[in-house]
Amino acid sequence: MSEHIVTSYDEELRYIVRRISEMGGQAERMVEQSVAALMGSNLALAQSVVAEDVLLDNAQRELDERAILTIAKRQPMAVDLRQIVGAIRISNDLERIGDLAKNISKRVIAVAEHQQPVRLVRGIEHLTDLALEQLKEVLDSYATRDHERAGAARARDEEIDAMYTSIFRELLTYMMEDPRNISACTHLLFSAKNIERIGDHATNIAETIYYIKTGQRMDNDRPKGDQTAGMTLSVDGGERGTNFRV
Amino acid sequence: MSEHIVTSYDEELRYIVRRISEMGGQAERMVEQSVAALMGSNLALAQSVVAEDVLLDNAQRELDERAILTIAKRQPMAVDLRQIVGAIRISNDLERIGDLAKNISKRVIAVAEHQQPVRLVRGIEHLTDLALEQLKEVLDSYATRDHERAGAARARDEEIDAMYTSIFRELLTYMMEDPRNISACTHLLFSAKNIERIGDHATNIAETIYYIKTGQRMDNDRPKGDQTAGMTLSVDGGERGTNFRV
Repeated sequence: MSEHIVTSYDEELRYIVRRISEMGGQAERMVEQSVAALMGSNLALAQSVVAEDVLLDNAQRELDERAILTIAKRQPMAVDLRQIVGAIRISNDLERIGDLAKNISKRVIAVAEHQQPVRLVRGIEHLTDLALEQLKEVLDSYATRDHERAGAARARDEEIDAMYTSIFRELLTYMMEDPRNISACTHLLFSAKNIERIGDHATNIAETIYYIKTGQRMDNDRPKGDQTAGMTLSVDGGERGTNFRV
Repeated sequence: MSEHIVTSYDEELRYIVRRISEMGGQAERMVEQSVAALMGSNLALAQSVVAEDVLLDNAQRELDERAILTIAKRQPMAVDLRQIVGAIRISNDLERIGDLAKNISKRVIAVAEHQQPVRLVRGIEHLTDLALEQLKEVLDSYATRDHERAGAARARDEEIDAMYTSIFRELLTYMMEDPRNISACTHLLFSAKNIERIGDHATNIAETIYYIKTGQRMDNDRPKGDQTAGMTLSVDGGERGTNFRV
């Protein structure tokens, strides 16, 4: 619990919103640095991301406790209650983004052993840029309480899923071409999957912003999650099978 | 929001605890069925898991809203507050377990294309048994409010991580032996990773049970997460590199 002394409900709320923004900035930075470490085989940078994750975990726990005490003490209703509940949800998503960045960082050594094709590196960097842009957009929408902008940012998740599918396919192809690529490509596969999941968390945050503003759930018209779960690739690179949806 | 009419705080609490138990049973069943569908190429079973995930998502959302209203209305303190906050956290973990089971189910078609080696199938089934036993043990500890039992169940996560590491290594070996295995093995890799993550969520639940009872965080003496992030395997099967820990 912070030392900060709270004198009014508004002040408590402002404190919570400010902490979310700080956590958001930290999560963004961790994602950026983890992928930079992965692509540049930078072990020191990877280690700093792993260390930073502890701070984000603690921030989430503190915000959680603080928000719950505020609910118990102030009994907020309607939009006030949703503000606090929304902050709990968003901090949870940010903490999970930090975990995913940490997991990418831990793969640096395994991936560093092999030189990766330039095209693949560009692909993963591009995927990361998309996810980071979406996250930044969503966090800006939170700061400005602009739920329409949050809705637009949520729609970008489709682009991320499509890019992930393309990288998934490419990684499988590299593995098939040369078994020496398999070990490193497996770690890149998990890393790409983590970045795709970061996009999912940004999408969750967009949905929470909508909920805070309106009290309603967003329409579920967005195709969710990655498209690769049902995808197979034959040895000659021809794609077979599609994701089954029920 | 349920139709159930609440007359006392104890009744609200009992309702929440009962709902958590129901959600837990549902999550267990989904995990069991998703792996059975994956191993038996049973598409109908896989589809039923995907359909059931919607129910678990809704149950989590309802419990969330209900728990928050209870906090706002009753202003519980100390262990009473922790009971409700704990229920919110546990239902979140259960919902994520459901998501992971759904993701396994979506891989059924991709994996069904190739016959898997018996040893690998047994390995994944064994990993699932370990994760399910841990989950069951943790949920029983919740029902009986036995935080020492929860602590013991949490320790089992190490066994799951070790088993996952062994399966990870085996899958890489199969991919290297024959490129035709790569596509299906990639989906099995993600499935095994999902099962390992189910163990992590069971561990989270154990930690929440401890927090409810004591108000304290458990000692963080458990090596967390999988050990494969830094693991590489050369073409001849020799293992190189280890997980880096900072």
